[in-house]
Amino acid sequence: MGLDKDISKDFERICHEDRLFPVEEQARQLARQLYSEIADLPIISPHGHTEASWFSENKNFENVSQTFVTADHYLLRMLYSQGWDLREFGVVAQGQTSVDDRQIWRNFAKCFYLFRGTPSWLWLNYVFHEVFGLQELLSEKNADKYYEQIQAKLQSSEFTPRRLLEKFRIEVLATTDNASDSLQAHAEVKHLETRIIPTFRPDRATNPEHPDFHGEIAALREITKNDIGSFASYLTALKERRQAFKNCGATAADHGHPDPFTVELTQKKADELLQKALSGQITAEEARAFRGHMLLEMAQMSLDDGLVMQIHSGVHRNHNAKLYEALGPDKGADVPIAAEFVQNLKPFLDRFGNEKSLSVILFTLDESTYSRELAPLAGHYPALKLGPAWWFHDSPEGMIRFREQAMETAGFYNTVGFIDDTRAFFSIPARHDVARRIDARIMAKWLGEHRITYSEAVATLKELTYEIPKRSFKL
Amino acid sequence: MGLDKDISKDFERICHEDRLFPVEEQARQLARQLYSEIADLPIISPHGHTEASWFSENKNFENVSQTFVTADHYLLRMLYSQGWDLREFGVVAQGQTSVDDRQIWRNFAKCFYLFRGTPSWLWLNYVFHEVFGLQELLSEKNADKYYEQIQAKLQSSEFTPRRLLEKFRIEVLATTDNASDSLQAHAEVKHLETRIIPTFRPDRATNPEHPDFHGEIAALREITKNDIGSFASYLTALKERRQAFKNCGATAADHGHPDPFTVELTQKKADELLQKALSGQITAEEARAFRGHMLLEMAQMSLDDGLVMQIHSGVHRNHNAKLYEALGPDKGADVPIAAEFVQNLKPFLDRFGNEKSLSVILFTLDESTYSRELAPLAGHYPALKLGPAWWFHDSPEGMIRFREQAMETAGFYNTVGFIDDTRAFFSIPARHDVARRIDARIMAKWLGEHRITYSEAVATLKELTYEIPKRSFKL
Amino acid sequence: MGLDKDISKDFERICHEDRLFPVEEQARQLARQLYSEIADLPIISPHGHTEASWFSENKNFENVSQTFVTADHYLLRMLYSQGWDLREFGVVAQGQTSVDDRQIWRNFAKCFYLFRGTPSWLWLNYVFHEVFGLQELLSEKNADKYYEQIQAKLQSSEFTPRRLLEKFRIEVLATTDNASDSLQAHAEVKHLETRIIPTFRPDRATNPEHPDFHGEIAALREITKNDIGSFASYLTALKERRQAFKNCGATAADHGHPDPFTVELTQKKADELLQKALSGQITAEEARAFRGHMLLEMAQMSLDDGLVMQIHSGVHRNHNAKLYEALGPDKGADVPIAAEFVQNLKPFLDRFGNEKSLSVILFTLDESTYSRELAPLAGHYPALKLGPAWWFHDSPEGMIRFREQAMETAGFYNTVGFIDDTRAFFSIPARHDVARRIDARIMAKWLGEHRITYSEAVATLKELTYEIPKRSFKL
Repeated sequence: MGLDKDISKDFERICHEDRLFPVEEQARQLARQLYSEIADLPIISPHGHTEASWFSENKNFENVSQTFVTADHYLLRMLYSQGWDLREFGVVAQGQTSVDDRQIWRNFAKCFYLFRGTPSWLWLNYVFHEVFGLQELLSEKNADKYYEQIQAKLQSSEFTPRRLLEKFRIEVLATTDNASDSLQAHAEVKHLETRIIPTFRPDRATNPEHPDFHGEIAALREITKNDIGSFASYLTALKERRQAFKNCGATAADHGHPDPFTVELTQKKADELLQKALSGQITAEEARAFRGHMLLEMAQMSLDDGLVMQIHSGVHRNHNAKLYEALGPDKGADVPIAAEFVQNLKPFLDRFGNEKSLSVILFTLDESTYSRELAPLAGHYPALKLGPAWWFHDSPEGMIRFREQAMETAGFYNTVGFIDDTRAFFSIPARHDVARRIDARIMAKWLGEHRITYSEAVATLKELTYEIPKRSFKL
Repeated sequence: MGLDKDISKDFERICHEDRLFPVEEQARQLARQLYSEIADLPIISPHGHTEASWFSENKNFENVSQTFVTADHYLLRMLYSQGWDLREFGVVAQGQTSVDDRQIWRNFAKCFYLFRGTPSWLWLNYVFHEVFGLQELLSEKNADKYYEQIQAKLQSSEFTPRRLLEKFRIEVLATTDNASDSLQAHAEVKHLETRIIPTFRPDRATNPEHPDFHGEIAALREITKNDIGSFASYLTALKERRQAFKNCGATAADHGHPDPFTVELTQKKADELLQKALSGQITAEEARAFRGHMLLEMAQMSLDDGLVMQIHSGVHRNHNAKLYEALGPDKGADVPIAAEFVQNLKPFLDRFGNEKSLSVILFTLDESTYSRELAPLAGHYPALKLGPAWWFHDSPEGMIRFREQAMETAGFYNTVGFIDDTRAFFSIPARHDVARRIDARIMAKWLGEHRITYSEAVATLKELTYEIPKRSFKL
Repeated sequence: MGLDKDISKDFERICHEDRLFPVEEQARQLARQLYSEIADLPIISPHGHTEASWFSENKNFENVSQTFVTADHYLLRMLYSQGWDLREFGVVAQGQTSVDDRQIWRNFAKCFYLFRGTPSWLWLNYVFHEVFGLQELLSEKNADKYYEQIQAKLQSSEFTPRRLLEKFRIEVLATTDNASDSLQAHAEVKHLETRIIPTFRPDRATNPEHPDFHGEIAALREITKNDIGSFASYLTALKERRQAFKNCGATAADHGHPDPFTVELTQKKADELLQKALSGQITAEEARAFRGHMLLEMAQMSLDDGLVMQIHSGVHRNHNAKLYEALGPDKGADVPIAAEFVQNLKPFLDRFGNEKSLSVILFTLDESTYSRELAPLAGHYPALKLGPAWWFHDSPEGMIRFREQAMETAGFYNTVGFIDDTRAFFSIPARHDVARRIDARIMAKWLGEHRITYSEAVATLKELTYEIPKRSFKL
């Protein structure tokens, strides 16, 4: 007993051309066929965490490990969970010296087996194979070979950030920026073929509990020459920054709140809370009310200036207090919590839900809300759209659950198609490829079951991959 | 590359004979075989929202759009979500004039692509194809052809409501009726072959927050000649109406509560709350307690008079305040909320859970409760049965999730089989067909995996389709 | 139309060699192949509810029904749900006489159809077929034949408990024992080939609301010769018992709490609550705080003495008050409730989450927490591991959901592989077989979709089946 040798070899490949397609022949044929219709479409990436300066400066990415390991919170969390010290992967507190880049890579190679079954395995193997021409599974044995081959390519003229934008066929790339950001780098990349645009993310200024709240207010005062002495002037400063973002090409704002609570305060009450926030006297409950009211203010501004409004909530940031203290945020210690949208968004929807010209995109990390709350809400309110399976759920099974749980109620046209959400620049084409394959596979299943016609399946896939994201983000 | 022409054509069919069966040949063969065992069984429809007067008057359905679009909240919500004014689909406030019926149809045809992937697509295509003989996917182009062909048939003598009952092989059809309903129409259809029976739904009279509470109490006073001056007389009035329903063939009551909260009040306290409700002085919390207590009273009445007790909860009705104000209820703005059954039903189950002669059917819209709460409860308490995937979940994926999440714990015999829940009369056979195909497919999968024997699979399917619903509703 | 006769016959088999594998040929081949790699591995059973005395006394199991029906709460709940009196299955209150063992079996056989689709069907059919050589589905007709064949084997010399340990290839078997247990039987089985070890479960002593709290404290006083007059001496007594358990081979403790709430109390406050508990004056809220604090104390002890710490929560025990009063606990009336881990475990994780030498295994019955809370927590904190699909979810669909919802985020190495959780000794190999088949099938799917390589799939399966459970429980 045992698999045929050739078959067995085929099953050792790390980036098989039929990956993510069902193994059964008929289903696989349909998936292949549908995938071929969208495989080569350009990438729309209207939400992410790359940096405009990479493209304005256009310097090659230097260190292999820094580029692929040290800044990737998906990898750090898994490595940390298995008892590794993150310093072994180059994460250091200010003033500390990091481990040698090649040693980091060896450490990582030794741990690569931990990522079996995770999307990181798929993304990295895509990058290793498709971008760097590697064929074998990364392991302790081939760590050095990997390191050298990647390093050589990274330094080549083919691998400048701008050449990579072309290579990856990225048509639009949005960054995420604080309200006080000068957007200097964005101004310098306006001429590029790829549209690189900022996203207005005012969380530091709208959340009195954010560790950088006071710094952000100071920075806003500086850049707007506005003393922000009252709630009215605070709103004026934010409006002005939105306009500056729009001038740099921004089409969207992004709001990350601990929960989707919204509440309508009087301007007097809002002013009172702002004063408390500015003087550091605000309570947790008041801060929640302030944030909840600011979502309404932000929606009003979006209605006025046309910026698409993204809302994501339901994460307990920096859950690991000791790790946060030692090494700061974004080390893989953010943990989702249960979310409630129907009551929390009522004040918001009472005021803005019926606005046809407003576009509000809701993301969740609480999958129990897909079918219970979000699909029904997005499937009714003109202002609402449902964001894709996101973060922990940006994975084959996560995407399949999203489609299976939300599409029958929300339909495809109340979603925003696939968008990635990453700082890992090299993973962008890998992520879009996973999404296209999974969507092709789901459509193939529905087609095979005659729940959609062939023409509809193709049209829907093109919409989800390219047209809807473009339209949803007003690109 | 591309699909073979014949295959491609096959995949454009809107109501394929193998729809909803898996694409893989072996699995499909088993599904076909099992489906053939139940495809032609009569329809038991013990829960729904059709009207007895349709059958007592037996007048042909007149307007195409009014029949298929204007009254279907599944369609309205999707159309509204995409920015359409519901007036374009014939929904009007009192006194307003509607758009022309053919124009509504054209509007709808233009939007039909929005329903891709939704159960409405399946239901409507079944009706178009199986009932009206249409072959192509509805679109702007063929809207008029569709309209005329449907209109012609609707007006024919083959399409009287009574002829349709026969055509659809409906053995039992239950309507849903207010406690104060005269049941005149029901009395007039007693002689029909199809058993058309009312369902006692007292929500307007038991929920002091219902907009029609006072009107319903007045109507109850009128029809029972009971002044409803005390809690005791209020109960007497309800009991009397239950008897009247039973006399018209009713076998079940139906209770829609915002949440499944139950509480045992003293008769004195209940009387006090009733007085407050009658005088319009009741608080939200008191109203909840009143409703919670009334579930116990209703269970006691069911125990006494034998009416099956249905409970569905966990919906925020008319979430869109502006839309409700303009156009009233049932326009697709009801949104599910999280439900909790284990604590909420404790007082109820302490008193009635062990009653073998009581039959309480629980429905949910919060799928996270299937495996966590409802299957374990229904899999233990003799009085409880678990209702099918319902409303937003009455769909292929919704039904599959229900079976996969609940059956391993509840078993098949603690459920009530498939029952539809619709006002859309033409969709009834379509809905039952979807359910039969999905159940056949699930059984085929379990059979193919040797998790059930062939004899068991066939027996179970017949039970789920026909025997269990009949038995559960005491028909 | 109809199935071929041979195929049809094949589909009547109750324990098919391809059970639980997908019906499609390619997928099935892969599943078979992968299963063959793990089918014969020894069984590691580090969590369960068998009794050491069975093996120290080594007396044959006597009564067929008592062995297979009366003590199995999975069976009792289903039978009870269908209106049966549990006395018909041998469940009696103290002093009552039970129904004849053969009559119980006949009753059970009559009801066996109720278990279609449940894991009990799989487990029992495995036992009937693989252990007792029965071929037909149990029914009223063959009840006596079944009874006699099982009875004959049960009484044979091949069926002593110790011979069965060998037959079932059980390498390690852990029982669950109260803190005050003398562990006499464990001392007597130390020489056996199978390692039979106790598990320290102090719930009766740490939960002031447990019905046996006072009895357990008295027993602890007795066995430790410690007056437990203060919180300090209470901790000392527990520590001493842990050491006694370790001396008998224990490697783990097990903590069943109503919810996973944790809180850090001062020793003074803890002492105050203990005094209230001892004098029966403690409130529900105080009892919760006491339990919440005791989880921290227990973690500290685990850190000190190395016992693995299991935590399972989220069950409303003995929900059916009348049944509990009449027949006591463990009759199938425990019902899961929603669980919240992220906030509840914060004090616990702040103190212990980063301890690399501590091993805390979390179980849940609220599947909505798999992807939302547990996989992200276990995928980050070094101290945490995620327990398998458990109790109601120890079933084919339950296991598939667990893998699909948790693995992409937690990875395989932050889980503890498969462990069973049963008092039904005969079902142990059946349960492990189901788990191995399901894991093989999932890996086959991922392999077929090229989401994992063949070498990785085999390695992962061996880890999940044997290596990880052994390592996780320090065996």
